[in-house]
Amino acid sequence: MKKSIGAKTLAFPTPVWIVGTYDDKGKANGMAVAWGGICCSRPPCLTVSLRKATYTYDCIMERKAYTVSILSDRQAAEADYFGLVSGRDRDKFIDTGLTPVKGEHVDAPYIAEAPLILECKLIHTFEIGLHTQFVGEIVDVKADDTVLNEQGLPDIEKVRPLIYSMSRSGYYGVGDFVGKAYSVGKKFKGAPDGD
Amino acid sequence: MKKSIGAKTLAFPTPVWIVGTYDDKGKANGMAVAWGGICCSRPPCLTVSLRKATYTYDCIMERKAYTVSILSDRQAAEADYFGLVSGRDRDKFIDTGLTPVKGEHVDAPYIAEAPLILECKLIHTFEIGLHTQFVGEIVDVKADDTVLNEQGLPDIEKVRPLIYSMSRSGYYGVGDFVGKAYSVGKKFKGAPDGD
Repeated sequence: MKKSIGAKTLAFPTPVWIVGTYDDKGKANGMAVAWGGICCSRPPCLTVSLRKATYTYDCIMERKAYTVSILSDRQAAEADYFGLVSGRDRDKFIDTGLTPVKGEHVDAPYIAEAPLILECKLIHTFEIGLHTQFVGEIVDVKADDTVLNEQGLPDIEKVRPLIYSMSRSGYYGVGDFVGKAYSVGKKFKGAPDGD
Repeated sequence: MKKSIGAKTLAFPTPVWIVGTYDDKGKANGMAVAWGGICCSRPPCLTVSLRKATYTYDCIMERKAYTVSILSDRQAAEADYFGLVSGRDRDKFIDTGLTPVKGEHVDAPYIAEAPLILECKLIHTFEIGLHTQFVGEIVDVKADDTVLNEQGLPDIEKVRPLIYSMSRSGYYGVGDFVGKAYSVGKKFKGAPDGD
């Protein structure tokens, strides 16, 4: 029996991405963001949505760049801190002991201790409502060599990214592998190798 | 030691959302989408990105509506099938045995067997590159009463949504609870209850 819950942002999963920027004085900042996702394969693009009131909003508008640092589930406290306070009031890198590193390709810093980071160049800004959506072209991805798989790509089981649940107001890890994509569905009639 | 992997859509987590639409003959269709996310809190909005070549693209353009059905990790094969074949060639609801139900508020069908669904009214279409980004206003969320928590909201531990990993080409479940949001980060100096 389905129950109507109303018009709410209750979709799963949502990410925990630390958006890294420089302010007008060159101070590195990071902000935890759950509203975002991949939005295009070619060019590879990633979107994050922010309220205008945030410190990061002005930083992205000024430098036209941001990074996304993906912390592991062992760094949940650090990730949470990046969503708890504003860069206007604190230096979150100093407070957490994490290290800002200038992006190689964009004018924004990433977190050295994050196992996976993406450097993004701002290419579109869309006003949706309370949130402004920033579309960034992913110009490079960097990962710790310890989290790469045999193909040289970041392995989700080694990165161990966080998942944010709004309804639980909590963070989760990634669970078990449950099936191969473009494969487990082949049992149904009509699949390329089925019928 | 960080290794550069190049410009790729390698962010974690990405969702497995079944986008439900009607075609011009009124046939219900669903398509598995990993490129998307929440993009605004007020109005509550959700974005999905699709290639123009997809069947679903035309359906959304015509009806200005779509739903997102969130299947559980016990339905990985069904979810995969929705990404394996095109609605041009097959009726994926008949093939999987799942049931399309007309949205209450929008002209699009959702999957009756999905524990959580969102009804979305198209409000913006943005051309990014290979993918077009559709922004839908979430006009209602519906969940099985068996997956609700004490507050009447969908519980991620009961919904058990799928996570897609491109680099593994596979699906994962949600793992353990690792910390309370706006709480575990309070141990760092500068937090609202810290210092």
